[in-house]
Amino acid sequence: MSCQPGAHIDEIDTPALIVDLDTMEANITAMADLARRHGVALRAHAKGHKVPDLAWRQVRAGAVGIACQKLSEAEVMAGAGLPDILIPYPIIGPIKIRRLLDLARRTHLTTVVDSLEGAGPISEAAVAAGMVIDTMLEVDSGYHRCGVSPDDALGIAQTIAHDLPGLRFRGVMAYEGHVYGLERPDDVVRAARASYDVLGAVADRLRDAGLPVECVSAGSSVSAEAAAAHPAITELRAGGYVFNDRSVVLLGGATQQQCSLTVLSTVVSKRGTDHVVIDAGSKALSLATLSMVPGFGLLLGHEDAVLRKLADEHGMIAVPEGARPFSIGERVRIIPNEHATVVTQFPELVGVRGDRVECVWPIAARGLMQ
Amino acid sequence: MSCQPGAHIDEIDTPALIVDLDTMEANITAMADLARRHGVALRAHAKGHKVPDLAWRQVRAGAVGIACQKLSEAEVMAGAGLPDILIPYPIIGPIKIRRLLDLARRTHLTTVVDSLEGAGPISEAAVAAGMVIDTMLEVDSGYHRCGVSPDDALGIAQTIAHDLPGLRFRGVMAYEGHVYGLERPDDVVRAARASYDVLGAVADRLRDAGLPVECVSAGSSVSAEAAAAHPAITELRAGGYVFNDRSVVLLGGATQQQCSLTVLSTVVSKRGTDHVVIDAGSKALSLATLSMVPGFGLLLGHEDAVLRKLADEHGMIAVPEGARPFSIGERVRIIPNEHATVVTQFPELVGVRGDRVECVWPIAARGLMQ
Repeated sequence: MSCQPGAHIDEIDTPALIVDLDTMEANITAMADLARRHGVALRAHAKGHKVPDLAWRQVRAGAVGIACQKLSEAEVMAGAGLPDILIPYPIIGPIKIRRLLDLARRTHLTTVVDSLEGAGPISEAAVAAGMVIDTMLEVDSGYHRCGVSPDDALGIAQTIAHDLPGLRFRGVMAYEGHVYGLERPDDVVRAARASYDVLGAVADRLRDAGLPVECVSAGSSVSAEAAAAHPAITELRAGGYVFNDRSVVLLGGATQQQCSLTVLSTVVSKRGTDHVVIDAGSKALSLATLSMVPGFGLLLGHEDAVLRKLADEHGMIAVPEGARPFSIGERVRIIPNEHATVVTQFPELVGVRGDRVECVWPIAARGLMQ
Repeated sequence: MSCQPGAHIDEIDTPALIVDLDTMEANITAMADLARRHGVALRAHAKGHKVPDLAWRQVRAGAVGIACQKLSEAEVMAGAGLPDILIPYPIIGPIKIRRLLDLARRTHLTTVVDSLEGAGPISEAAVAAGMVIDTMLEVDSGYHRCGVSPDDALGIAQTIAHDLPGLRFRGVMAYEGHVYGLERPDDVVRAARASYDVLGAVADRLRDAGLPVECVSAGSSVSAEAAAAHPAITELRAGGYVFNDRSVVLLGGATQQQCSLTVLSTVVSKRGTDHVVIDAGSKALSLATLSMVPGFGLLLGHEDAVLRKLADEHGMIAVPEGARPFSIGERVRIIPNEHATVVTQFPELVGVRGDRVECVWPIAARGLMQ
């Protein structure tokens, strides 16, 4: 463990993953309030933090349940008693289908499919087990990752609803991940709304055909406000808002003050005044880059300096002339470009209030992979 | 656990990290033979695999000891009885210095410094503990990451050797990491040799001044042959050779047949014939890219297809017209661009011989961070 509760922040060994509890708690409350204000359900994504206690905090604040991107994450969360879990990821192959059914015996589970090749075997396994699995259809609303094309959605939804016993059709979902590839907040809102229009039109078509569409789920932390306000959306999915990060700030989803997560690092080497090395490299900060700004994270207190290059365990900083100098042994906090690929590197998350460690959470669902 | 020993490779849940044992064993033998042939010591770097049993295999094949990039890795390796450990990374701050001394009580340890700000506190702590810590000086031979400038090396080495009690000066080391930024095998060899020339000149200058330089350590898996053959080098450091990867192949350090490590993945979604999604994303393959080739890894059996984009848990593949099609549920093996940032994502390494699982190693020193 990198430190004990009660320790001063200076006693934390580095690199460490730190969350400012005051900021995080305000973020959790604000997202729940946003959903409430717009009368949509909030489904809190747990893939970014992977900590059951944080998922519980999201649920206690008002989320109807959580989303997990992997079965292994969902198994950890169900083990911690989380009551309602959506897995917005195609479950493919006999090993995973067996685990999916096991999980559905322990918690209220909703699976998501985007092909009949995927849905068919789940249906067969559910029938064989005498179970009914809640199922949603993923629609490609513009990200072009997973999801059926909007034109194909009705036919596939009808097959799921009418011809695949063991599946209960609950509705449609989409993920507007392409907004993270944009550069301006206005563009994010515009692209997100266009995505909800697509999903809403699909939902209308399904309802017109007599299909039950009790849930229309979309959202991301950066487009949460637009999702909650859109008339077609009944469920807002978001998770990154617990921490926020540099990408969310640049895309207008949060202010820098709302970033609760930092990597605490130590200066370990220095050449002259312009070249500095810290102990957070790609195995801590990940290699995620942003098109709008240079570098692999924002160096708090050294905002002019650029974390220009990462080796596995080294972060190399370029310090412009006249900028505040670094010293060997100095501790530096970094707001990551993207939080999710950073959190998954660390075994634990250190919760601090002011300059005191209040708790240390194991990142229980970290790196379970399957 | 993603599978059990004895299982068929098709029973491994995905994404999983697979090592072909025949290939790996041949790689371990070949590097030990290379060092022996040139009469240099081999110090096997364990940062890439983080598995004590693999470190032992390297040592049993002839390595004089291992290198670890972090104290936490070294602690795991010492706990597994590994007898001789170099940490070629600056140890900074009182917490880490305390751990360094603890470790030096349990194994033969060599620390590396590249500043007097770093060396001074280790000296003081060693004296206070009544210990002597073997110490090497890192020289910047061209990578411009850590290391003192060649011109400053003599003065700092003299201070370490004469004025810092508790440290025993053992020699100099460098890491020619800049060769991984090149694109052609010839350029790699040329740049590596130039780097050894720089380090060798520093070693000569120190010897001329009467300093004991028992070890001159350099190397990487891609430049191992050049390092072993260079007259100045007494110790070859390499680790990636156990697995190799796409970068090592493109830079001339290995053939594709010598790549023992793959990520096993499943096709989970598909749109038409040209868009395919697998269950290995950036949390499995890392975001490492190579300037010479597109994509985030080499898709075995689908070499024309490009793994063009990674989300956290999704790999998106572009399939050119006429290329062999993918099907949902199909399992695909991927040679990573860089192995080290991939291995650290996984909790276990599955050793296969032919199409049978022979062993499953916990990646014991994975993601310990500090």
